Amino acid sequence: MNVCKRLDQLLLQIAEIGCDQTTGGYNRFAYTEADHQLRVFFAQTAEELGLEVGVDAANNQWAWWGDPDREPEHNLVLGSHLDSVPSGGAYDGPLGVLSALSAIAELIDDGFQPRSAVGVANFIDEEGARFGVACLGSRVLTGETSYERLSQLIDYDGIPFVDVVSASGVDPARLGRDDRALSRIGSFVELHIEQGHQLIDLHAPIGLASFIWPHGRWSTTLSGTPNHAGTTRLEERDDPLQRAAHFVLELGELAIARDAIATCGKIVVEPNAVNAIAAKVHLWIDARAEDPDRLAHLETDIVALAERLGGRLVNDSLTPMTVFSASLNQRLGSLLENPPVISTGAGHDAGILASHGIPTAMLFVRNPTGVSHSPAENANREDMAAGVDALIRVIRGLTS
Amino acid sequence: MNVCKRLDQLLLQIAEIGCDQTTGGYNRFAYTEADHQLRVFFAQTAEELGLEVGVDAANNQWAWWGDPDREPEHNLVLGSHLDSVPSGGAYDGPLGVLSALSAIAELIDDGFQPRSAVGVANFIDEEGARFGVACLGSRVLTGETSYERLSQLIDYDGIPFVDVVSASGVDPARLGRDDRALSRIGSFVELHIEQGHQLIDLHAPIGLASFIWPHGRWSTTLSGTPNHAGTTRLEERDDPLQRAAHFVLELGELAIARDAIATCGKIVVEPNAVNAIAAKVHLWIDARAEDPDRLAHLETDIVALAERLGGRLVNDSLTPMTVFSASLNQRLGSLLENPPVISTGAGHDAGILASHGIPTAMLFVRNPTGVSHSPAENANREDMAAGVDALIRVIRGLTS
Repeated sequence: MNVCKRLDQLLLQIAEIGCDQTTGGYNRFAYTEADHQLRVFFAQTAEELGLEVGVDAANNQWAWWGDPDREPEHNLVLGSHLDSVPSGGAYDGPLGVLSALSAIAELIDDGFQPRSAVGVANFIDEEGARFGVACLGSRVLTGETSYERLSQLIDYDGIPFVDVVSASGVDPARLGRDDRALSRIGSFVELHIEQGHQLIDLHAPIGLASFIWPHGRWSTTLSGTPNHAGTTRLEERDDPLQRAAHFVLELGELAIARDAIATCGKIVVEPNAVNAIAAKVHLWIDARAEDPDRLAHLETDIVALAERLGGRLVNDSLTPMTVFSASLNQRLGSLLENPPVISTGAGHDAGILASHGIPTAMLFVRNPTGVSHSPAENANREDMAAGVDALIRVIRGLTS
Repeated sequence: MNVCKRLDQLLLQIAEIGCDQTTGGYNRFAYTEADHQLRVFFAQTAEELGLEVGVDAANNQWAWWGDPDREPEHNLVLGSHLDSVPSGGAYDGPLGVLSALSAIAELIDDGFQPRSAVGVANFIDEEGARFGVACLGSRVLTGETSYERLSQLIDYDGIPFVDVVSASGVDPARLGRDDRALSRIGSFVELHIEQGHQLIDLHAPIGLASFIWPHGRWSTTLSGTPNHAGTTRLEERDDPLQRAAHFVLELGELAIARDAIATCGKIVVEPNAVNAIAAKVHLWIDARAEDPDRLAHLETDIVALAERLGGRLVNDSLTPMTVFSASLNQRLGSLLENPPVISTGAGHDAGILASHGIPTAMLFVRNPTGVSHSPAENANREDMAAGVDALIRVIRGLTS
């Protein structure tokens, strides 16, 4: 079967799951009904191909073609995630999982028999949309996120992580690092839709990743004097939303000055009433830069900005620069006729695995809009076919 | 009994209802458990004084001392409301209701017998915190808000108004203008905590209201291009939160230039995720000015500002200037030894009744912080006593 037709069919099978019909965006958050349906779909699709399906101690799903315990150091794992950000696109995550399944299906049709096992992973909760921690599945798998930390997490409705997991039928106490699952990952190649337009500019359908920018998240709260909106003269106000507006505008200027990226994408106002001057404004900041020094300088700038506006900047997470495997990239480069190598500001499960010493690479597929985390995210059929074809060549090259 | 001691006791009886112990603020929204408890308290307190308690067709509560149907045009109605804004103060609303009950209790103790009936009203949902429409009780009572409009309202959780009302045991279809209840309001005097500090500046414990500023509410939505926060350069973004920040800052400048008041106290960001550039920002605007022309000019300015930033300003409500009864104010002035007369930017049920031709006045009690719609709202015992004493003199003067 034409590789793109197969991928099209798989994408179509999940097109309605978690789809907001008014925006065309996807809401597929960990441990929701949409997530459950996607996991059932993953298991059924893999089983129909004859793969062995299971879950690890982090509740990530695995599908194996061949015996993963025979020569585990030679296993090749593909895959990505099926969850989404709020109102996310159709490709961020699913493209990697479905391209891997399509590539395997094609090779089975061709009668190819890998000498070492090929796995497909569906990492749970990569986006962190529900509990605020990105790449939760790979972080638990590697032991980077402890059970103690998990037991402190609450979701967007204030429900504890452990209660959410229990309600799904999984004992949260069994969640944790899984050495057996880790030992089965000889090398990991995550295919992902590009979240930018370097490949557009380079006129290339696919690319390899060099490294992930260092990345931090911070938050701050600006407090003021709540008061009646109709009776307090503007000169007499201490309105934290005015200061928050300055923060948002100056944050962008600071990032540009450092040739970095900073975003305020989340704001919560209290009490958030039409006729009340705000009492508090909570702001969340995401910042990334191509190197750690630049990010550290930017952080210093943002700390000073928050202080000047009456807030204290709190660091919520800091992810160092992640460099992908040079030797694996070299092998992929020769198998794929040397596609361009690009850096990325986005975090991925591949980054978590790489930082834990697993030989890891990423393959990006061109995104004609350059837009990500949005319904506008897109992929051309030709480029998707190039992605599946690349995975086919990688499997053939690394497992025969 | 000392009038202030009685008022103190009543305030103490409701001090815990709807109180957020961490902020000291009150959350007393229409048709919630807190509201129900306050209504039970109102009915019990009034019945213990021997008053006749009932509800009108708008679900406002009434307590009558004397027969309200004997000479209804001579009836005097006092009262205010018991609901609050989110995290509101203890006095905005309750001070008017409890001062009225305290004044009547004092006069009963004194053996005073009014020649015409005295009523105390507890208007439901004055703040509009739950369904977004301020003074909903008086608006339904006067027929200003139709059943059709009510049936379109939804609360902060998206639950339709009619379902909320049904769940409280009231048939929403019976809600509407109540001519009998209106005919019983010979004149209405609402006592209220001042929401500003004119009385501080004037060194006066109480004041009379001249008029309520004209007042409007608007909203607008700024849309942008949602995108991944980690991979989109700032120069390439169309981030509506940046434009919203400009809106918030320039709104204040426009209001100051027009010598008016404008507030943005409510903002909702979509998707409101730490790692996603905002797709949409919804802003709500409250603006008031001392005269209608000034408010109209300010509205024109804000329409232009929204347009420049890519939004369309929608008017959600417009309340014209409300002038209180000159003859009633003259009588109160002579009964109360001519307290200062001040205008106010805040809307009240008294304003709704006045705009429907009912002789209406307002009495303000000094607020030592000048702060309203906040836990910081306050009242001195001496000033509260002056308020109750004023109501006693008004009842004696107007009903004997």
